[in-house]
Parts: sequence; C-alpha cells; structure tokens
Amino acid sequence: QMNYKIAVIPGDGIGPDIIKEAQRVLEKIGEVYGHTFEYSELLAGGAALDAEGIPLPQKTIDECKNSDSVLLGAVGGPKWDHLDGKMRPEQALLGLRSGLGLFANLRPAVLFNELKAACPLKDEIIGDDGLDIMCVRELTGGIYFGKRGTDGSKAFDTLEYSEEEVKRIAKQAFEIAMKRDKKVTSVDKANILDTSRLWRKVVEEVAKDYPEVTYEHMYVDNAAMQLVRYPKQFDVILTGNMFGDILSDEASMITGSIGMLPSASLGEGKVGMYEPIHGSAPDIAGQNIANPIATILSTAMMLRYSFSLEKEADAIENAVKSVLAKGYRTKDIVGTGEQSVGTNEMGDLIVQEI
Amino acid sequence: QMNYKIAVIPGDGIGPDIIKEAQRVLEKIGEVYGHTFEYSELLAGGAALDAEGIPLPQKTIDECKNSDSVLLGAVGGPKWDHLDGKMRPEQALLGLRSGLGLFANLRPAVLFNELKAACPLKDEIIGDDGLDIMCVRELTGGIYFGKRGTDGSKAFDTLEYSEEEVKRIAKQAFEIAMKRDKKVTSVDKANILDTSRLWRKVVEEVAKDYPEVTYEHMYVDNAAMQLVRYPKQFDVILTGNMFGDILSDEASMITGSIGMLPSASLGEGKVGMYEPIHGSAPDIAGQNIANPIATILSTAMMLRYSFSLEKEADAIENAVKSVLAKGYRTKDIVGTGEQSVGTNEMGDLIVQEI
Ligand SMILES: CC(C)[C@H](C(=O)O)[C@@H](O)C(=O)O
Ligand SMILES: CC(C)[C@H](C(=O)O)[C@@H](O)C(=O)O
Repeated sequence: QMNYKIAVIPGDGIGPDIIKEAQRVLEKIGEVYGHTFEYSELLAGGAALDAEGIPLPQKTIDECKNSDSVLLGAVGGPKWDHLDGKMRPEQALLGLRSGLGLFANLRPAVLFNELKAACPLKDEIIGDDGLDIMCVRELTGGIYFGKRGTDGSKAFDTLEYSEEEVKRIAKQAFEIAMKRDKKVTSVDKANILDTSRLWRKVVEEVAKDYPEVTYEHMYVDNAAMQLVRYPKQFDVILTGNMFGDILSDEASMITGSIGMLPSASLGEGKVGMYEPIHGSAPDIAGQNIANPIATILSTAMMLRYSFSLEKEADAIENAVKSVLAKGYRTKDIVGTGEQSVGTNEMGDLIVQEI
Repeated sequence: QMNYKIAVIPGDGIGPDIIKEAQRVLEKIGEVYGHTFEYSELLAGGAALDAEGIPLPQKTIDECKNSDSVLLGAVGGPKWDHLDGKMRPEQALLGLRSGLGLFANLRPAVLFNELKAACPLKDEIIGDDGLDIMCVRELTGGIYFGKRGTDGSKAFDTLEYSEEEVKRIAKQAFEIAMKRDKKVTSVDKANILDTSRLWRKVVEEVAKDYPEVTYEHMYVDNAAMQLVRYPKQFDVILTGNMFGDILSDEASMITGSIGMLPSASLGEGKVGMYEPIHGSAPDIAGQNIANPIATILSTAMMLRYSFSLEKEADAIENAVKSVLAKGYRTKDIVGTGEQSVGTNEMGDLIVQEI
C-alpha cells in the first residue's frame, strides 16, 4: 500500500467546487486500489491575495516542493484585475511553474464522442474517430520569463531560449509521441525569430534519436490555420511558451469539449502540477453548476504521469466516459434529451462508476 | 482623367500568374472609368535573389516610393528555404513594410456566401449572414523588428512597442470600425507582457475619442478560441505584429475562402501595398490553375484605400461576386455542379462583368 502526498490548491471562483469532486474521486480510487492520499490545502492566486496580500505565499511553494504532486483548481477573477504586474493572481501560476521547474505543459485536446454536437467544426472534418491531439508546450522559458520593462513611453519583453531548454522539452514531446501515433509537429516562426531558428535546429537534432517518429516543422501562423482546416493531421504539437498558450487553447476549442480537458505540467522529477485548462468562472462559483470533469481527468493524469498508476488512471477515464454515455451532463454541455446534473451529482456519478 | 503609377512586384511561384489577371482587371477599370494605370515591374523575393543575389534590391524600394501604390503577388518558396536570416525571400516583405512605413495591415476575413460549403465551421455558427471580420495588425514594430541575436547556445528576440506606434495603429482600427459595425476588440497578453500593458493603456486612451465605438480587450489565447467558438462577435480585431500574424491567418481560415482574401498595408500617406494573403504555391506555378481572385480583390482595396475610387472598387467586388454566383470556380474552390475554370478564364470572366 502506497501513500501519496498531494498539495491541493483550490484557488478562486469555481476552483473549490471542482477540486472537492476531484478529491472525492481520488478517495474512491484509494479505497478500491488500496492507496492513501494525504492532502495539504494551500493558498494561491486571489485567495492568497485576500488572505495574505501576495499571490503566491512562500509556504505554498515550500509545501508543493514537499509533496508528491500538486492539484490546482483555477486562479484569478475580475476582483483582482485592477492589480498590476507582480501582484496579479496569475503570478501564482508562473511562480509555481518556475519554482517547481515544471518546464513541460501537456495539454491533450480530445474530442469526446458524446460531445460531438458541441464541436464547432463540420462533421466531415472530424470524421468518425474523433480528435486526439497532444500539445506539448514549453512552460518555464520564452517570453514569459525573459527580461521586460518600461522606459518612458516604450516597453519591451524579451523572448529567450537556450539549447538546453529546447532540448529537454523536445525530448518530452518525442517520448510522448512514441506512446501515441509517432508524429511530432514542431511549431515556430523561424522565418522571423532567432529563437525559432535555434528551436528548429535543436529539435532537428533531437528528432534524429527517434527515427520511428515522423517529424515536421510548421510556422505558427500556418499551424493556427491547419488546426481549423484539418486538425486530424496532428498527433503531438511541440512548441514554445507563448505559441503554446495560443495554439493549445485553439486546439481545445476545436474539440468543443473545453470544460472537459485536463492538463499536466511536468519537470525533471516526478512532481507535477495538474489542473483543468478552463478558467475560474467566478460568475458561477459556489452554485453547484461547474463542470468538475476537467479536474477529475486532471487527477487521472496525475496518477498516470506522477505516480505511474496506469490502471487507476484508466479507471477514472473510463468512469467519466460511462457517465457521459449514460447521458448525464453538467449545464455547460447539456443537450436535448440529456440529463442535467450539478457539480456534486456529476462527482457522485463518476465515483459510483469506479 | 487621372493617371496612377503602380509598382508591380509579381514575385515568386504563382505570383506572376495572378498579377497578370489583376492587371487586366485594372486595365478594364481604366477603360470604363477613364483612368490610366502606369506600371513599373519590379523584383523582390526569390526572383530578386536569383537575378541580383539579394531579396530586396534598392531599385525596388526606390521605385515603390516613387509610385502611387504597390501591387504584390507572393514571395518565397522551397528553392530559397536553405538561405538564412537576412537572405531569405521574406526579408523583401519586411523591407518593403518598414521601408515604406506601412504600419497598418488590414486583413478582411470575409465568408463568400457562394463558398459557404468550404467553411470549416458548422452552419449554426456561421448563420445566414456570413462572416465579415477586419483584422488590423501592426506591421512595422513588435518582435518582427526588435533586436535579436544568438549568443553561444542561447538566442533572443525583443518585442518592443512605443506609445506612438500603438497610438497610430489604434487610431486606424477605430477609424475603420466607424465605417463598419463600430466595434473594436483589442487583443493582447496584458497578464504577462509589459508591451501588452502599454498597448492596452494606449488603446484605452484612443478609444475615448471614439465614444460611438464599442471597445473591448481580450487575451490572445482567448481570442484564438473565440474565433472558432463564435466568430460573429468580432467586427474589427486590433492587435500587434506577431499576434496579428497568427490571428489573421486563423480568421482567414475559418472563412474557408483563403484563396479569395486580399490585404492592404498602409502608412501615413496614400501609398499602400496590396497583396493576396495566400502564399506563392510554387507547385502550381505557371499552370493556369491558381486562383487570381485574392489578387484581383487586392486591386479593389488599392482603388478604395489609396486612390479613393470607391465606385471602381465596388465594380471589381461586384464583378467577382457575380462570376461566383454564376457558378465559375478555379480548381481550389470548385464543388460539384460548378464550372471549373483556369486562372486566365477567371480573369476573363471578371473583366467581362465590369
Ligand atoms: C493565466 C495565464 C498567465 C496562463 C498562461 O498564459 O500561461 C493561462 O493562459 C494558461 O495557459 O495557463
Ligand atoms: C512571410 C512572413 C514573414 C509573413 C509574416 O509573418 O508577416 C507572412 O506570414 C504574412 O503574414 O505576411
């Protein structure tokens, strides 16, 4: 029997609502498969600003480092939008990413067959076998972490990448591709940016170590088009922090399943941070309306990537699928003839299926 | 009777094919409305590299400056892909943009009703009244023109904006919105970038001078999603050089009419550069296959924006619409029951309608 220490950061808005259901799912997994999960609940984002006046208290970082993994709800909201720069709730995310060395952001964009009607793309583009893209986004470098500043009536931001930074994220992408459809599309803007030319050179080197993987590169403007035109051409998309922010959101949206998509942020070790890709939706917080599925699926990613508990991860994913197949939906995804349920009920239903 | 001096840069790939048809259309406009157009044909891109060893000869820049406007086909192709940095054909575009001070890139993303079948989005998203978005992209600043370099195993690029640069492009966007549906969505990443915070501050200032225009700002990742989810929410999208590159391409693709979309690049004066948004498609060059419509519509933009010839611009746009309505299509857009025609025939048909 194993004991896993999980740092839990509910955060803002619907964060607490959805995290609660995810923890119930973990509890059930523990019972069924004989593991124990120990939680320490921590503050970050707006919640931390309200309680302690800063978005990311040192205690939060320290506890996360002492845990086997981090489960995060969502941070931010209009309440803290007037704050500037270093005091914004989003700084908590950046601080956790860099503080924990989480350089690899994995964002699956998967179309759930049951939600096909919600997909904005025409049926002939999606076809019968759905969509399954994995965006691998560099998360601790690029223009997010370069020097920036204002100088009188001018401002600047610096986009920087080192060979080492590109190499480790490229390796991740190729390793992941080996377990999937063995194709990597590296996205850059090498016709303009020096960082992109470095990026491309390094990725080409790494690609040589994976002869089984089909490798191609694509300009970011073209990638933004191709995701809409023919998304099935993609298996793994590998890209930098800023381009990854844009393209992974676009990729999620074309699935039409945005309330359903989890994410994992990984580093060199086993500690990872797992969170839904959607935001904190403060307008529906605390009303038992929010869709907890993205967060629940984030726990499945945690079990798989941080704890190597494949069977348990599968159990969660299958439970979600069968609840959907039975026609239960939260309000955001309910269609005609389907059964509308609240946040708690959706949690109950998934727990029961495990 | 007016005489207009037009610098013509056919460029590479299908560039010469489509430029030829656009010139025939201009000739017809001249006959019907009593104007003369005088052309000077210039080299840029791959064609200039082949002939003179550099992508943008000084003569080209000089002649463009001495003209009333520039009409460009397309530049680049695999033949010159091995060249690096300063010698790439795309440098011609950058050199023309900055050399002519063309800071405002206007990219209409319009869905042609006749091509609705080619739109990748579901019918319920598009509705009956089509799509009509105008992307206004800053074109001579941002990360395209900041300091860049490589330093051992590291590389960097600098994103810079001054208040002045933001102000003039913002004004353009609001002026354009006044002639359209009076809504501007300014896109940035103000939760991360100092340049975006400057951008937002300046745009908010400019917005005050246009009380009739609804103004909103949106993060770039969200904008990439919203374009797919509900594109009809947009009227004018105002953004920087890099985000504009990505979003305007995404916006074009959701119209499904990419071979049909023109663009204009404008500066302080009347001289502008007009070009299709599509690429040079070297694989189909010289085969009488390419779709000349985007280039022909670019001449309409030239007549409207540089020469204030509204009637003449309308005549071209209406001619294109009626040829499409009669069922004629080039190969790239032909559907069942439609008449497939070559580049020249499409040119003929449009000329006849004027
Ligand atoms: C909130 C914001 C700083 C963040 C980012 O840009 O990385 C978010 O968009 C994300 O993708 O997780
Ligand atoms: C060819 C390239 C340099 C150019 C750009 O990025 O501006 C192109 O994508 C465009 O949008 O005109």
